[in-house]
Amino acid sequence: MPDQTTLTHLQTVTDSLESGATMQTRYLLNGALPAQDVARLLESSPPRERQLLWELIEPSYEGEVLQYLNDDISSQFLKDMDTEQLVAVSEHLENDDLADLLQNLPETVVSEVLASMSTQDRMRVETLLSYPEDSAGGLMNTDTITIRPNITVDIVFRYLRRHSTLPDMTDSLLVVSRSDKLLGTLPLTKLLVSDVNDTVRDIMETEFTAITAESPANEVAQLFEDMDLVSTPVIDSESKKLLGRITIDDVVDVIRDEAEHSMLSMAGLDEDEDTFSPVLKTTKRRAVWLGINLITAFIASYVIGLFQGTLDQVVALAILMPIVASMGGIAGSQVLTLVIRGIALNQIGATNTRWLLNRELIVGLINGLLWATVIAVLTAFWFDNIKIAYIIAGAIVINLLFAAATGTLLPILLKKMGIDPALAGSVILTTVTDVIGFLSFLGLATIFLI
Amino acid sequence: MPDQTTLTHLQTVTDSLESGATMQTRYLLNGALPAQDVARLLESSPPRERQLLWELIEPSYEGEVLQYLNDDISSQFLKDMDTEQLVAVSEHLENDDLADLLQNLPETVVSEVLASMSTQDRMRVETLLSYPEDSAGGLMNTDTITIRPNITVDIVFRYLRRHSTLPDMTDSLLVVSRSDKLLGTLPLTKLLVSDVNDTVRDIMETEFTAITAESPANEVAQLFEDMDLVSTPVIDSESKKLLGRITIDDVVDVIRDEAEHSMLSMAGLDEDEDTFSPVLKTTKRRAVWLGINLITAFIASYVIGLFQGTLDQVVALAILMPIVASMGGIAGSQVLTLVIRGIALNQIGATNTRWLLNRELIVGLINGLLWATVIAVLTAFWFDNIKIAYIIAGAIVINLLFAAATGTLLPILLKKMGIDPALAGSVILTTVTDVIGFLSFLGLATIFLI
Repeated sequence: MPDQTTLTHLQTVTDSLESGATMQTRYLLNGALPAQDVARLLESSPPRERQLLWELIEPSYEGEVLQYLNDDISSQFLKDMDTEQLVAVSEHLENDDLADLLQNLPETVVSEVLASMSTQDRMRVETLLSYPEDSAGGLMNTDTITIRPNITVDIVFRYLRRHSTLPDMTDSLLVVSRSDKLLGTLPLTKLLVSDVNDTVRDIMETEFTAITAESPANEVAQLFEDMDLVSTPVIDSESKKLLGRITIDDVVDVIRDEAEHSMLSMAGLDEDEDTFSPVLKTTKRRAVWLGINLITAFIASYVIGLFQGTLDQVVALAILMPIVASMGGIAGSQVLTLVIRGIALNQIGATNTRWLLNRELIVGLINGLLWATVIAVLTAFWFDNIKIAYIIAGAIVINLLFAAATGTLLPILLKKMGIDPALAGSVILTTVTDVIGFLSFLGLATIFLI
Repeated sequence: MPDQTTLTHLQTVTDSLESGATMQTRYLLNGALPAQDVARLLESSPPRERQLLWELIEPSYEGEVLQYLNDDISSQFLKDMDTEQLVAVSEHLENDDLADLLQNLPETVVSEVLASMSTQDRMRVETLLSYPEDSAGGLMNTDTITIRPNITVDIVFRYLRRHSTLPDMTDSLLVVSRSDKLLGTLPLTKLLVSDVNDTVRDIMETEFTAITAESPANEVAQLFEDMDLVSTPVIDSESKKLLGRITIDDVVDVIRDEAEHSMLSMAGLDEDEDTFSPVLKTTKRRAVWLGINLITAFIASYVIGLFQGTLDQVVALAILMPIVASMGGIAGSQVLTLVIRGIALNQIGATNTRWLLNRELIVGLINGLLWATVIAVLTAFWFDNIKIAYIIAGAIVINLLFAAATGTLLPILLKKMGIDPALAGSVILTTVTDVIGFLSFLGLATIFLI
């Protein structure tokens, strides 16, 4: 059960480190644990301990581990390596993983590492480097097995047998023309049930889904999810030539990042925010977000300030006003979260926006009336003042309606403007719910109470 | 590009529905679009339109689509079917998907549907039904291809050729003993490069990862991610007998749900919260969350109430106090989000809690001092009162430190208590940051101002 073993191992490793049982630690770090677990161990360790652990990993295994570390940490380790070490590391990496690592290194180092590689590999890696990391080109690997359409199944079998191994996640062979154009795919499951005398052309699938190298990673992920793919070929958009293939293991990472993205963004954090990255770096990242929210807070305070006179006369208002603001904030962020997710899942668009808005307004109204009543009753008893009870009830309903409208329309609008709704949405929403909350409550009070 | 086509199709379908071009709609719904897209179309449609669309889908295709609909919607459709229709649907489903659907139906209907199936299939489905949906047993399928260890590769090829097709996502054959015990796996990529005279025993992999049917879904997902699996056998924990296999396509759904879970829970929503589910159902779900948060709000107000006297004398405090609370809330939820994610990724445990706490306290302190200064300066100018400036600065620092401590320790504590940190965390955190915020600010004011 990985969930437990990882932390158990972390414990074991920590102990063996403290007790100085380095042999055991070495053993655990160099293959006894899957590279991903080792990566997680490193990520889970305070910087000093992390450095110690890293030094215990064999250079030949470092590459394996590096590819699973988040950028913050891996780049820290990579900076400390000389080119020789980098070359050593690169030898144990698949081209796509190597490309990902190189993307974080200075130009000069990159070219030295490339220089150390075989012409073929260098060309392949250079191809990968020419695409952004979050595009199909950046995700793809070049270890495709290609065959010609005119050969027989029997020949294919003999051809495959000449390999010592086939690349991981090879679920289909790619059928290409003499000029490397992709003609079709031949799934192994199909190959294995075909007559040995059939030609590849007879049995290959011509209705395959090929991705162009420029397609963004999230579209690739969507395609894998929709079509239940294990791997899919990547082609050049112009020449239609085969460039490589993308495998599900790389896509799974995209899917997880994508799904986590919204949650982190809504708290003003980014994917490679590392729970253990340098304090100052983290502090800076968070400070920005706090600063942005401070503006929100001051706007809210300014609104309250407008009613200084009213507050002066009825202190109860000061005591109750946070309730109005916070109820609006909660209701709004529920809608916001749902709509942001809906947009990510392509469930929400121009066709159903109006319907959705109406729906959320109704939900907001019902919940508004319900909780307005509850709050009114509680307030009436607490301050023994029926007028304030009516006023807060009214403010709650108004704020929950605004919350519903903002929560629905804001993310759709931001998306249209090309702004990430998850990142900007929550701040703007809170501003709205705070301002409307204080404005409606203190406003109504000024009108009916003073 | 699926991201766009889905909504484009939604548009097309909507138009063709309105214009009464049912032929085209039928065509789109019954195979022209992948079943997942149709499912998303239905999920993206207002209830009335959704019903219309559903009626245009061929009974033979309904099953395909149903399996991709979220439980809310699919169960609505299933309720309206008579057993005959259900049987018709079931014929077009894989066993694991069928089992998932049956899980949402009344006992009597289930048994009728089962009765309509072949003995073999019925037994298989009954096996699947005996495991919870979110366990390995619930995820697995029974379409395994098994072979014996003593036959030669050549025989394996002939045996496979006798199949008309192999199950999707078959990446390896499962080697079993006469008593159905799992002995090893034979990846197709290995099979294809092996000498035809080798026996299966010679080339099979005996160090395979087999999952027991009871393992929870999230551990399965972890395993697939760590080991880059396409499919993996599921065995009975006692008898070690082969029960079936889990494929990556089902695991991908688990991974997405898992990753979305935290984001939705933090807003008090659950996975199958449907953007388009019945208003009253949604309203009820959300009302609960608003109610819980109302308690928080009243606790905060109560704390403010304690300082009625102070507020009466210095109205500026009422204007500024939301700033202290909200800055604490933001800082706290940043830490909370990170720690919740860290726990989910197994990066955080007993071994590094103390280190993490220290780290977050330092981050909190630095940001506290930074923004306390900014806020103090702004306050001093706004109210031209240096004392209040000092007081709010002190309160900000105190609240950000509490926010850091709560954000770090609370989720770890909740996890230990078996409570979902994402669900309970945010409410408790806001309570703390509100209470501490008002308490420290108004408290300090009472001491030094009055």
